[in-house]
Amino acid sequence: MITPALRVKIETVKKLVRKNARTSLEKVLAKLHPADIALIIKNLSDLDRKKIWESISDKSKIASIILELEDSQIIEFFDAMQPNEIALILNEMESDDAANILRLLDQDKVNEILKYMKKDEVEAVEELLHYPEDSAGAVMNPNFFALHEDTTIKEATKVLHKAEDVEMVFYLYVVDDEGRLVGVISLRQLILNPPEKKLKEIMTKDVIRVTVDMDREDVAKIVEKYDLLAIPVVDEQNRLVGIITVDDIIDIIREEATEDIYKMAGTTDDEVLMGNKSIKIARVRLPWLLITFVGELISGFVITFFQGRVHEFAILASFMPLIMAMGGNVGSQSATILIRGMALGKIDSKDLSKVIFKEIRVGMIMGLIMGILLALVAPIWHGDPKLGIVVGCAMFAAVTFSTFTGTFVPATLIRFNFDPAVASSPFISTLNDITGLTIYFTVSIVLLSIL
Amino acid sequence: MITPALRVKIETVKKLVRKNARTSLEKVLAKLHPADIALIIKNLSDLDRKKIWESISDKSKIASIILELEDSQIIEFFDAMQPNEIALILNEMESDDAANILRLLDQDKVNEILKYMKKDEVEAVEELLHYPEDSAGAVMNPNFFALHEDTTIKEATKVLHKAEDVEMVFYLYVVDDEGRLVGVISLRQLILNPPEKKLKEIMTKDVIRVTVDMDREDVAKIVEKYDLLAIPVVDEQNRLVGIITVDDIIDIIREEATEDIYKMAGTTDDEVLMGNKSIKIARVRLPWLLITFVGELISGFVITFFQGRVHEFAILASFMPLIMAMGGNVGSQSATILIRGMALGKIDSKDLSKVIFKEIRVGMIMGLIMGILLALVAPIWHGDPKLGIVVGCAMFAAVTFSTFTGTFVPATLIRFNFDPAVASSPFISTLNDITGLTIYFTVSIVLLSIL
Repeated sequence: MITPALRVKIETVKKLVRKNARTSLEKVLAKLHPADIALIIKNLSDLDRKKIWESISDKSKIASIILELEDSQIIEFFDAMQPNEIALILNEMESDDAANILRLLDQDKVNEILKYMKKDEVEAVEELLHYPEDSAGAVMNPNFFALHEDTTIKEATKVLHKAEDVEMVFYLYVVDDEGRLVGVISLRQLILNPPEKKLKEIMTKDVIRVTVDMDREDVAKIVEKYDLLAIPVVDEQNRLVGIITVDDIIDIIREEATEDIYKMAGTTDDEVLMGNKSIKIARVRLPWLLITFVGELISGFVITFFQGRVHEFAILASFMPLIMAMGGNVGSQSATILIRGMALGKIDSKDLSKVIFKEIRVGMIMGLIMGILLALVAPIWHGDPKLGIVVGCAMFAAVTFSTFTGTFVPATLIRFNFDPAVASSPFISTLNDITGLTIYFTVSIVLLSIL
Repeated sequence: MITPALRVKIETVKKLVRKNARTSLEKVLAKLHPADIALIIKNLSDLDRKKIWESISDKSKIASIILELEDSQIIEFFDAMQPNEIALILNEMESDDAANILRLLDQDKVNEILKYMKKDEVEAVEELLHYPEDSAGAVMNPNFFALHEDTTIKEATKVLHKAEDVEMVFYLYVVDDEGRLVGVISLRQLILNPPEKKLKEIMTKDVIRVTVDMDREDVAKIVEKYDLLAIPVVDEQNRLVGIITVDDIIDIIREEATEDIYKMAGTTDDEVLMGNKSIKIARVRLPWLLITFVGELISGFVITFFQGRVHEFAILASFMPLIMAMGGNVGSQSATILIRGMALGKIDSKDLSKVIFKEIRVGMIMGLIMGILLALVAPIWHGDPKLGIVVGCAMFAAVTFSTFTGTFVPATLIRFNFDPAVASSPFISTLNDITGLTIYFTVSIVLLSIL
């Protein structure tokens, strides 16, 4: 989203870079938001980009700009750097951000970098890296703001004054002697209550929390459901170990949606790490194409099988693309509704059979309409009303069946705890090509022999 | 996301409903979060649902539960009610929430309901309804918290005490005599500064803001980029007219992603308003199927055209599904990468030609691999090495071309300011079936005549 005001800033920076006006450039960059500098960097050539980096001496500013870059840009940026240089920059980051960046790099390089990082940072980062990638533990910030339940409001306010480098404080979490989460207080409650009161007197005790091992997608759903700004993360002993703030939740929601969209299209979000490297991108996409390859060879066998057995094959062949595409689309529609509904939490695993039946009903209606349409069009083309009835009925059967495939396959994956998104559009389309062609020719043969 | 603790609560409520234990039910419900009650309601039969509603006498609680329901459930709920009853519930809502619900209902019914609502609410709601559906104006909350620049911190704190019904206050917006937005102060700055200071002395003057007519998707991108908790909305005169909070931003991101996913699969998010009504759902999906219908009839013509002209048609026919499916998948992959990249702001409109060329390069690599694979498999099946070379080359050409279609069509739509998501998978697949078959047969004929 480039606003006109930002566009002006970008042009100013570009001009200064071209002129090599280093001092002015430094001044302008110092005033710009890291997210804006990241955007500018994206729009420059490699050479100009280098000039920008050289104009920023503040390591913590460099760190905050890097955090705004795309993953593929981050990988590229650090690829050209030595482990000790990288460590200097990572030292300036929150440990959760540093851990997220290390997850993008090769294990060997990570080990080298850790050798040069500050000791306490290394400990925090290693602890975070040890949580599975999509868990609450991996995305939480272990650098949170918590106070003992016996603290007074006055003391709490004083501590708050000094807590400048703690990430976005909205809630004060309250812990007991063992560090267990016992309550929460909003900044507003802190302002509205008399200073001599103790936190435990005014805190809300029923704190919505998540455990370190919870899937980050589920964490996002909870934050969304209760409209929270941050959620505390606890370990098995209910000890507060981190917080996840709403800005991270937004990133999670975006990333998970992108992941689902990519899977639907038969690729994965690993693509985004590949930048412009065509061979690596092709490698990410190929598995789905191989599934299609094998599946469509089977479709080919189906065609060859019926080729010798149906007298009217030449005419029937002209409707094959229609039958295959219709089954593919209808099946993808059904699969998408089911998979997205599950992802949004609108469909529960016990609603699955209800969804399958609903989709079959919808499929019958669409199949009926498409079947009638084909029954009317086919005779116009080939001049045989009997043929219209035959291919119309075959269309109805194929479309209806494809809503069943489109919902039954992902539903089965869910039942056995697999990711339903594996049943993405390419897979469902391929399956429906095989079943669709088989249904089409079988129904046609039967009806042609009767009528 | 149903946690074990919530599961217990749901079972308790169900038991009480079954036992008709009205007093206990009232008590339990009073303690539950509206979002949880909404979830419970979803899991009950129509009759039990009625009992729940009857056990809640507090209209504002009813209002907050309704806001947690799915759109299709809200429509269903209000369908059964009279306009005056609906008005009583809407009176309890923030005007932006009330306006959002009225957008779901028929215009006639809306006019009736507005007659029964409180006068000041009606004014606020009508103003909101007047903004286009996806604009910042339509999603903003006009009930914000703003103070004059000459207010002291002490006075501001006092006002804050009384401002209980103002939606989530994180920032204090500061305005001048004409109501123009001139600054912002965080709650934290309020705590950390001496009480006698005036707001204009401590406020940040460079406030990130959006205009009422900005698209809500762009608003979400700005909030996300700068990690804000709320963003002020101003009119053309820079007067503060509302705020959008991060919880609304999360809803926008989810909804826009869902919209994109549905469009990709050849349906729209209007589906979610239809609940279980099969005929209405079928009607939403049919337009895409009709596009497919027409397109695949053309594919059929292509087949018929070549049928009489190629001697080896019977053998070539067996690879038609493979060529069509491969072109469809590869094209959808390319289109998805481009459309999602634009939606995330990772691809700018001036990067389009770069993306097209990148996709063609990827297409050539995938086409080469798939072509070689087919060149090896085809002779095994049909026993003719020459045929392998012919269909392998045709596959290479078809796959490469489909990455061009998959990116060129959405890129062209973007150039002319159309929604690229119209070039959804069904459309791209259909187009690629036509071009793929044409390329396949043409390449085959040419090569068969040469080799």
